[in-house]
Amino acid sequence: MNTYPILGTIRSPADVKALPEDALPALAEEVRAKLLETVSNNGGHLASNLGAVELTIALHRVFDSPRDQIVFDVGHQCYTHKLLTGRFAQFETLRRAGGLSGFCRPNESEHDVFYSGHSSTSVSAGLGLATAKKLEHDEHYVISVIGDGSFTGGMVYEALNNGGRSGTKHIIILNDNKMSISENVGAFAKYLAVIRSTPQYYTFKASTERTLSKIPFGTKIVHGLYDLKTQIKNKIYAQSNFFEDLGYRYMGPIDGHRIDILCDALQAAKSVNGPVLLHVITEKGKGYAPSESDPSSFHGVAKFDVSTGAGGEGDKSFSDFFGNLLCEMANRDARICAVTAAMGLPTRLGAFETAFPDRFFDVGIAEEHAVTFSAGLAKNGMLPVFAVYSTFLQRCYDQLVHDTALQNAHVVFAVDRAGFVGADGETHQGLMDVSFLSSIPNFKIFSPYDFTLLSLDLSNAINAESCPVAVRYPRGGAQTRKTEKLKRALLSHALYGDENAETVLVTYGRLAAEAVDAADALQAQGKAVLVLALNQIKPLPQAAIELLQNKKRVFFFEEGLRAGGIGEKTAAALLENGFRGTFRLIAVEDRFVPQGTVEEQLRQFGLDSKSMVDTIGKEM
Amino acid sequence: MNTYPILGTIRSPADVKALPEDALPALAEEVRAKLLETVSNNGGHLASNLGAVELTIALHRVFDSPRDQIVFDVGHQCYTHKLLTGRFAQFETLRRAGGLSGFCRPNESEHDVFYSGHSSTSVSAGLGLATAKKLEHDEHYVISVIGDGSFTGGMVYEALNNGGRSGTKHIIILNDNKMSISENVGAFAKYLAVIRSTPQYYTFKASTERTLSKIPFGTKIVHGLYDLKTQIKNKIYAQSNFFEDLGYRYMGPIDGHRIDILCDALQAAKSVNGPVLLHVITEKGKGYAPSESDPSSFHGVAKFDVSTGAGGEGDKSFSDFFGNLLCEMANRDARICAVTAAMGLPTRLGAFETAFPDRFFDVGIAEEHAVTFSAGLAKNGMLPVFAVYSTFLQRCYDQLVHDTALQNAHVVFAVDRAGFVGADGETHQGLMDVSFLSSIPNFKIFSPYDFTLLSLDLSNAINAESCPVAVRYPRGGAQTRKTEKLKRALLSHALYGDENAETVLVTYGRLAAEAVDAADALQAQGKAVLVLALNQIKPLPQAAIELLQNKKRVFFFEEGLRAGGIGEKTAAALLENGFRGTFRLIAVEDRFVPQGTVEEQLRQFGLDSKSMVDTIGKEM
Repeated sequence: MNTYPILGTIRSPADVKALPEDALPALAEEVRAKLLETVSNNGGHLASNLGAVELTIALHRVFDSPRDQIVFDVGHQCYTHKLLTGRFAQFETLRRAGGLSGFCRPNESEHDVFYSGHSSTSVSAGLGLATAKKLEHDEHYVISVIGDGSFTGGMVYEALNNGGRSGTKHIIILNDNKMSISENVGAFAKYLAVIRSTPQYYTFKASTERTLSKIPFGTKIVHGLYDLKTQIKNKIYAQSNFFEDLGYRYMGPIDGHRIDILCDALQAAKSVNGPVLLHVITEKGKGYAPSESDPSSFHGVAKFDVSTGAGGEGDKSFSDFFGNLLCEMANRDARICAVTAAMGLPTRLGAFETAFPDRFFDVGIAEEHAVTFSAGLAKNGMLPVFAVYSTFLQRCYDQLVHDTALQNAHVVFAVDRAGFVGADGETHQGLMDVSFLSSIPNFKIFSPYDFTLLSLDLSNAINAESCPVAVRYPRGGAQTRKTEKLKRALLSHALYGDENAETVLVTYGRLAAEAVDAADALQAQGKAVLVLALNQIKPLPQAAIELLQNKKRVFFFEEGLRAGGIGEKTAAALLENGFRGTFRLIAVEDRFVPQGTVEEQLRQFGLDSKSMVDTIGKEM
Repeated sequence: MNTYPILGTIRSPADVKALPEDALPALAEEVRAKLLETVSNNGGHLASNLGAVELTIALHRVFDSPRDQIVFDVGHQCYTHKLLTGRFAQFETLRRAGGLSGFCRPNESEHDVFYSGHSSTSVSAGLGLATAKKLEHDEHYVISVIGDGSFTGGMVYEALNNGGRSGTKHIIILNDNKMSISENVGAFAKYLAVIRSTPQYYTFKASTERTLSKIPFGTKIVHGLYDLKTQIKNKIYAQSNFFEDLGYRYMGPIDGHRIDILCDALQAAKSVNGPVLLHVITEKGKGYAPSESDPSSFHGVAKFDVSTGAGGEGDKSFSDFFGNLLCEMANRDARICAVTAAMGLPTRLGAFETAFPDRFFDVGIAEEHAVTFSAGLAKNGMLPVFAVYSTFLQRCYDQLVHDTALQNAHVVFAVDRAGFVGADGETHQGLMDVSFLSSIPNFKIFSPYDFTLLSLDLSNAINAESCPVAVRYPRGGAQTRKTEKLKRALLSHALYGDENAETVLVTYGRLAAEAVDAADALQAQGKAVLVLALNQIKPLPQAAIELLQNKKRVFFFEEGLRAGGIGEKTAAALLENGFRGTFRLIAVEDRFVPQGTVEEQLRQFGLDSKSMVDTIGKEM
């Protein structure tokens, strides 16, 4: 076990400020050790956090959190911030039920200003916070820390377009590690590469400036220098500095692993009168050899062995199966394209990319563009499949409606991580896609419970349908030994148990396996229950409604929000058809669901087999 | 009545190409006359269409639609395109039921490639179409025509970030009229102003180039010239050309009202090997004095008098009432801010802007930023009200969830144009907001039926609630003489008629007035009906459910999509509580609703008072 002689004494940012300057590199080392120790045990985001250690230390040296407010984009780089703001002692609870979140959570600490989890929001949030401060004559700063990957999301430009003229004390830190989750794509990435290639004045001049700033009035001189240098640099390189054009004072690029340089630059940024963009160059995965050499694989990780970097071999997941299947299908049909919004690896499109580079499109963290681009591909005869996490699909709702469904464009959505996702918590749960997709005209939605069904659904979606189709599947693997007991009725639904039973357990997706277990357990108590596992959930299959119509008791278990879900739609259809039995809907009531294991989350909402037995048993 | 000696003969783009060059200015004049004649009669988008006449003629001279595909962003500039692609004879049906749409509709003509109505989608759509063509070895072009106002939407940057490296035959026409709907905001607008101020080479050189291009191989020379000029210009002005940085060949700026220059430039753009951005300067409202001098007021218009430009005085609308009310409230409370996404005028925030410029934020067509920015304002103690059309609110669904609801930020949403909107048709209907908002945890939703209730709801939302609240209201005015008969039960709901009646007509929002009429008509037939008009629709008021629980017949009329609406939620709640009566839900079934009058649309879906009487009467 590591010991943490310095980090262990840090109770708040004041303690960071109180450290002698020469203790800071050792603090950084201890932080990295703690990150490795915890993430290798609990899983989490590693490489991005390793890259932001010095930057975060410098932020807490120079700024006065929480009066100065630091907003982390996404939150893939906020672990050090947690360690320095009074959460060292709880850090081993990271990503566990009741423990620290892996993202920023205002309900966890006053130092976490804004919820984070999705990309490209921090500039808008920071500008709102800073504008309020300006209106309230509060002289404190707002700092948005955002990676270059997040600049592939359009919302950043909406915010920059407004921020440059805002006159606020808003400092944007562009944490440029030359990649987002995988290597960064697009023109903006190239543009940053050009800026990076210019000489790094700050690196060479930092110590001089530090000396200067210790002399009374030195800070002013430092600014003068920065100002002059920026001007010279712009003149010399005739650099088309995008950020200056938008009205930000641009500073940088500077070395993001030198705390002294960082502190100087942040001090300089503080006394600019107006919004600033500070460009910081960091190395993703810094300080741990395996993640330095392969930062993409160490972006988000499960438990692994620190000494080798090797993780456990997981069972085959729905994602794995999907990736292989789409590759096979694309091999037979040259119209099939794969589209991803910076999630090629986790949605398992790696093999597709290698095999069909011309038909693989990683558009960056740009879900809106991904969908409308896909609709364009579809309108001209291609067969695009957009592989996307459920939680990120909500980032392009208008494009699903306006650009896809309205013209009935044949785009297929492979919706991964549908349902509970476990340790990533409330910002990443896949509990809303059924509600928001099922209200969109023309869409069809399928929710397979195992790989065979996923295969049928995807083939059907690509080859037989001509409308927008979503095929949604959960994080993790299938419980095939249980679901193989189900008897499929075409693509509509599947049944298990006594078809004459007066009690029906209705569900869809992953819960089908739980339902089979529950039916067996109830059967063992002498209680006959029929399981109806929907596969097509929109439109609701007429055959399923007819089957339920004359039953005495219907229990609908839904791994998703109650509001707008399939349970409510089933209830309405049954009631209008004159159903007179008992109806119970067990789903996630009106709330957000924090982290835990998937098993804990299923149990919490009464959706595991044991809860099913209890709920049904007591009414029979 | 005007006659159209040239325009009347245009049956297809081939006819445009066949005209002698010197007939084109006269064609443009006839097009303008036709636009004025029709829009002054039918209402519609005038100023933007008047500005794009020459550009559209040039496009159809140079390109070969529909093999070359022209995608109009939003569609505020597509009327000339309709007139030149075989729709002159039907043009007087514009925006009427069964007639031509005011936007691009692929189901109307093969020349309308992609549905349009919402902003900033055309670059993504065009890139998708062009990429498919590239994969299919189709040598035709895709042209996206997009106004500078649409560049305030982030999706454009997502697309540009991908398009520059695409190697496609994608030509983006930036139709720069220095404004979007109102005068344009933000840094990008300033940036374009800088570009515009550079000498317009093309204006002076166009005739020379035209001569050159008539010589064999001339086109190549023309390109050489363009190329050289661009280089020179970039050198001289050390212009930070954003578009070139992103990988596009930049051409322009050119005079967008000179057909000869436009044709030359488009020809040059065609032979560039790769994506091009052509910057065209136009004047919004061009050729009609009232709209030239006040283009904002002539952006979208109702019927007006061509000779004076004066419109009819409308009745006071919900929007008017909201605008005045918010101003009054802001006068008493310095924390109240108004946020709009380029819709300040139509949401009636003009007086607010004048009175409280520091607390008024027009962020451009950037709904995502608007919401997260508002959440930032709220987190630091301000009281932001985002005034937005229902149909545009769906453009920021993730920000509603992730940045607002998750942290329970107290942002108020004034959701205008909720319900049927009439002539703008399927892209603008406000039929989805209830479905997508009511699935978001922590949100409250109110749907007032008259001004008094709107006032109560808004006060409550701003002063009493501390969660995100949406107050939604329809386009147009209130039928106060009818709704004043309703008896309010706090903010929950209101009642009209015999409370002991066994039949209840449930509804909310604008339909409350229809329901009162229906109840009166049924009463006259000796049929007692109680009207229950919900005001708070999320969460569903418990008192309302209890009232319905023991009734014999419940008829729920909903001006919105059935799927995910309040009717379904009511049905589920009733069924679970053991309701045993008849339940009927009359709403908009799974489809998009095209243009017509609001009255026609209500009738079409059985939601007017007469349909209510028929539906209820036949079951009593």
